[in-house]
Amino acid sequence: MDLARSPLAQPFPEMPAIDGVTLRIARAQYRDWDRADLTFVELSEGTSVAGVFTRSACPSSEVEMGREQVQQGLARALIVNAGNANAFTGYRGREAVEQIVAQVSEKLECSANEVFVSSTGVIGVPLPKDKAREGVAAVLAAEPCSWEDVANTIATTDTFAKGATASAVIGDKTVHISAVIKGSGMIAPDMATMLGYIFTDAAVSPQFLQECLNRANRSTFSCITVDSDTSTSDTVMAFATGKAGNTALASWDDTGADAFAAAIHDVCRQLAHLVVRDGEGAQKFIEIAVSGAQSDESAHRIGLAIANSPLVKTAIAGEDANWGRVVMAVGKAGEPADRDRLSIGFGGIWTARDGQPVENFDETPVSEHLKGQDISVTVDLGIGEGRATVWTCDFTHGYIAINADYRS
Amino acid sequence: MDLARSPLAQPFPEMPAIDGVTLRIARAQYRDWDRADLTFVELSEGTSVAGVFTRSACPSSEVEMGREQVQQGLARALIVNAGNANAFTGYRGREAVEQIVAQVSEKLECSANEVFVSSTGVIGVPLPKDKAREGVAAVLAAEPCSWEDVANTIATTDTFAKGATASAVIGDKTVHISAVIKGSGMIAPDMATMLGYIFTDAAVSPQFLQECLNRANRSTFSCITVDSDTSTSDTVMAFATGKAGNTALASWDDTGADAFAAAIHDVCRQLAHLVVRDGEGAQKFIEIAVSGAQSDESAHRIGLAIANSPLVKTAIAGEDANWGRVVMAVGKAGEPADRDRLSIGFGGIWTARDGQPVENFDETPVSEHLKGQDISVTVDLGIGEGRATVWTCDFTHGYIAINADYRS
Repeated sequence: MDLARSPLAQPFPEMPAIDGVTLRIARAQYRDWDRADLTFVELSEGTSVAGVFTRSACPSSEVEMGREQVQQGLARALIVNAGNANAFTGYRGREAVEQIVAQVSEKLECSANEVFVSSTGVIGVPLPKDKAREGVAAVLAAEPCSWEDVANTIATTDTFAKGATASAVIGDKTVHISAVIKGSGMIAPDMATMLGYIFTDAAVSPQFLQECLNRANRSTFSCITVDSDTSTSDTVMAFATGKAGNTALASWDDTGADAFAAAIHDVCRQLAHLVVRDGEGAQKFIEIAVSGAQSDESAHRIGLAIANSPLVKTAIAGEDANWGRVVMAVGKAGEPADRDRLSIGFGGIWTARDGQPVENFDETPVSEHLKGQDISVTVDLGIGEGRATVWTCDFTHGYIAINADYRS
Repeated sequence: MDLARSPLAQPFPEMPAIDGVTLRIARAQYRDWDRADLTFVELSEGTSVAGVFTRSACPSSEVEMGREQVQQGLARALIVNAGNANAFTGYRGREAVEQIVAQVSEKLECSANEVFVSSTGVIGVPLPKDKAREGVAAVLAAEPCSWEDVANTIATTDTFAKGATASAVIGDKTVHISAVIKGSGMIAPDMATMLGYIFTDAAVSPQFLQECLNRANRSTFSCITVDSDTSTSDTVMAFATGKAGNTALASWDDTGADAFAAAIHDVCRQLAHLVVRDGEGAQKFIEIAVSGAQSDESAHRIGLAIANSPLVKTAIAGEDANWGRVVMAVGKAGEPADRDRLSIGFGGIWTARDGQPVENFDETPVSEHLKGQDISVTVDLGIGEGRATVWTCDFTHGYIAINADYRS
């Protein structure tokens, strides 16, 4: 199925090379297609690594191994297979990953623990070992390529290549961050896991890199949803080569630590928004800001209940300021709420306040706002200080077409 | 919008009159439509009442009052307004309900506590008191009508009238149960709350009637989902007039108690299935049977995670035996699971066992099964004895058309 480019797509940014990071791609032909589908990122010795992984109780072997490997803190290589998720494939799937790790670690003369593998695509078909072996041999010998090449090669059902960049000053050094991501549903096992990779030349201890990634993840990747479904393979990793020569960051007290964490957060937010902008069938990008909840965690859960509600998402697809459906979603979230203190707005204009519709509000700017591509929904619970912002897309015929009409 | 009759519709059954129950309908014109929209059920003195209500934190005044009223155990009247949910309408909404209760209790010379009111339809518009007053006056004076008339009058976006009946023997008496329900999404605030009413001539204490209803609810209404959204007004009530003359049931030890509870359960299951069969856009009725979970509660949560997954529901709409999406849904449920013991089947045929696809299974009967209207999905976790069955419908362009294309 040829998918039309998302109307919410953004151009691929100019992104700096990262010293200590070499990008290569090749064709393993995991599917019968005319494109590269195997990515190899070589990392200089001493590169710190951190990762966050799906909470699925049925993860792929790649995720299980990645969770363990990341504990030791160092990375020399990342391999990404596109077209086959290698999930739910039992021992045969695991053997294929082990074969790739052995082949790469032998070439780089590094520990097997320092070679990370991700796979995305069809579930339930073991990654073919012969194609993997030939593909890895080809990619180990390939010429270096660009960030955009990598972004295209890790992609599956994505309709545009996704990258983000930022920089930070640590002491007298400027460090750079370049990152790519793929994903267009929280999952579609036929092709659409979220995989994100962040590379920086900063010198950072593995533990502090993990702290920065965890903190950024909570308010970015954990705040987006396309269809409420969670992949067996979702992975976001960060790699820090240390080539910038800054004094290594190891704690929040270190000079530049806050600036570096903010830059990581900025890149994660950009990447997360790009995934929503490529949400299956998306026509509108929706920001839902919840305030006045009992706690930040409660606000987060209420925000996701709204963002996951098919009725809210179809109403916005229909450009309908249907605040009744937002009330419904708040009510079903299972969080503290008081109907008579609840207020709801669209595009910065309250349509309901303190449990009742606002009489005679100006509908024109609300209607104009809903006709746009970037939609803002504001919910105030009126019972506390808890806040959260989440992002999603609308729910359209395009989603049904991609996921029901197409037979795998 | 004219909605086509669901392809899963069933004919309205022959249902016996219930001694002590008189049905009447009238036109309050809550919307500008050519149909009755106000129902009045008169109940003989001494009728026991029980109820289960939405868990929404933002319920309607009707639900708040119903929850309180049901405590005292007796009912003389039920009023149902269709076309206006009277939810999120503050004190004005509550005043309208109090006016109806006063008008009916004065006519019947009963306690205000014994008059129950439900409303379903648009959220955020206070029920108009003048239309309610005239409508109630008309319905109090109307001629008695049929069960099917009532089923049509409480309906909103439903595409067919829904009723169910059963009987049970208590000692030497046969007792009858007749029941009606409306609903076609778990909610669409523009019209589609679930409201169900069960009437019996059995003599039953209010407490035991509530126990029977709670028990039936857990394995029927609590096991269905159309779109994961929960109404501000969902209500199921049971009324027992006692006119059958049986020795009143008051505990599980009483003769006939099990038979009566089974009949109530049977009616609730029929009603719950009818709601799924009228699910917005539904083309297929899906039963999901989960076994081998750590507990029954865990099996229930896993079943609902599968039943609420847009990716599973669109796959079945596309007649695709996509067990990878079922794996994904099990994984995201947040319940204990072991990927390598998980088995999944369609139409009674395992397509994946013990964490791996079944090789060379016969695809023909699986494909034939998925082309039908009644779909069976079987999931075995392989880690315990917990079981649950849940029901849902597929997710189609029809759902998007009803909820996005149509502007309220």
